[in-house]
Amino acid sequence: MNANQHGPKGTLYLVPAPLDFGCDVQAPLESVLPQGTLQTASRLTHWICENAKSARAYLKRIDALHPLAATLQEQRIDELPRAVHKKGDHGTKGSAQFDARMMLAAALQGRDMGLISEAGMPAVADPGSSVVRAAHDLGIKVVPLVGPVSLLLAIAASGLNGQNFAFVGYLPQDGADRARRLRELEILAVKQGQSQLFIETPYRNAAIWQALLQSLQPNTRLALASGLTLDHADIQSRSIAQWRSLPCPVDNRTPAVFAIGA
Amino acid sequence: MNANQHGPKGTLYLVPAPLDFGCDVQAPLESVLPQGTLQTASRLTHWICENAKSARAYLKRIDALHPLAATLQEQRIDELPRAVHKKGDHGTKGSAQFDARMMLAAALQGRDMGLISEAGMPAVADPGSSVVRAAHDLGIKVVPLVGPVSLLLAIAASGLNGQNFAFVGYLPQDGADRARRLRELEILAVKQGQSQLFIETPYRNAAIWQALLQSLQPNTRLALASGLTLDHADIQSRSIAQWRSLPCPVDNRTPAVFAIGA
Repeated sequence: MNANQHGPKGTLYLVPAPLDFGCDVQAPLESVLPQGTLQTASRLTHWICENAKSARAYLKRIDALHPLAATLQEQRIDELPRAVHKKGDHGTKGSAQFDARMMLAAALQGRDMGLISEAGMPAVADPGSSVVRAAHDLGIKVVPLVGPVSLLLAIAASGLNGQNFAFVGYLPQDGADRARRLRELEILAVKQGQSQLFIETPYRNAAIWQALLQSLQPNTRLALASGLTLDHADIQSRSIAQWRSLPCPVDNRTPAVFAIGA
Repeated sequence: MNANQHGPKGTLYLVPAPLDFGCDVQAPLESVLPQGTLQTASRLTHWICENAKSARAYLKRIDALHPLAATLQEQRIDELPRAVHKKGDHGTKGSAQFDARMMLAAALQGRDMGLISEAGMPAVADPGSSVVRAAHDLGIKVVPLVGPVSLLLAIAASGLNGQNFAFVGYLPQDGADRARRLRELEILAVKQGQSQLFIETPYRNAAIWQALLQSLQPNTRLALASGLTLDHADIQSRSIAQWRSLPCPVDNRTPAVFAIGA
């Protein structure tokens, strides 16, 4: 693929999606996405996405506010390969075989494209960064649009240090590995003052909650955010000692962001 | 202060501000803030802010789209103490003397309040987390609203790993300390796969750029984002080796986010 063969290139827009994916209730789009983001999204016709079905569902919601430049049937929607979903864009396995530049052919031919994930910002706690990297390598302009990002809303609302923080993805599934990892994160959070954020597949929420209460020191602060941007949003922040006297605040259906700090 | 003396408490809203603070051009508010955020902000009358003057300027811009519930003169706007600005909310010095609960008196009396910084999300790469923490301690509900966050836009658009990343604030000012810190961050970024983001006071941009090119390995990837959400946004991502052959892309007036990764 020659990056220069087709004259001016298109732009790759990173289009955030609402955080209500898989939830019983939906946030009105205009309450969580700027008009500018919705308008830009409505004029795109070429997409790279995590999941085509949920991308179409989101486009349908946008269409109701800002009519799409092309019908849903005419939209060109390409899914990221499964290996990227499962192993991440920057893993050592699986993703190595994937050439994201192939997905950007339309942008090389001058069309603007959108990158989209199922919830929140693509390429943040979600696949997509290999596509963004490929865009830079091909000289395609990358423009991130404003929208909801659960991690960011969670750290802001946690009361933990937001001037030094890390998002570390998922924890190990094995109990002993997980406990070790939690103590490692607690040292970073408490001794080095860097708040540590992580997420979990909802059906493991209760298990991780028990591990947190068992593994961490009484004075360590633990914040929990779920339902962000929705009416039933729940953001709580307490010491481990305080949490130990309360019933488990998570269920096994609702995605949550966990954060620990000093 | 008795948290329970006044019946139902108000909510503390975290209100993001546009990223054009101190810039020659402004982003139209509706292009970077959801209607929901602007509407909620317009009905608040009690504020805690980083700087009262810039808070008023922002409220004036909101008023032009969504008339404020109280005139600018009637708005109650309290500034965070200077010690918090300079030393952060979670430092060991200065901030220790500051009791953020005092600032939340109106919320305890049932009024909704807004927390606001000069640009982006309060309490993220900005002061304010002590107020959020105090709200949790007083049983005041905390609701983060959606808006632009430069760090998040930068990591998404960097093409670096967004499934494991850290924001580490500012680098040391001393040259030798800074070089040491950069090599430390490079190890985390390259060996441990955790992208590292940091910011700098604009007038030191060129100095830090030289330090980056001198201290980091040729294969390390360095991304730079400035003017985020503005028409002149500039987001570039290259290896150190590639950057070394190009003119310095930063100036000493424009705030920038730097990110390094594998």
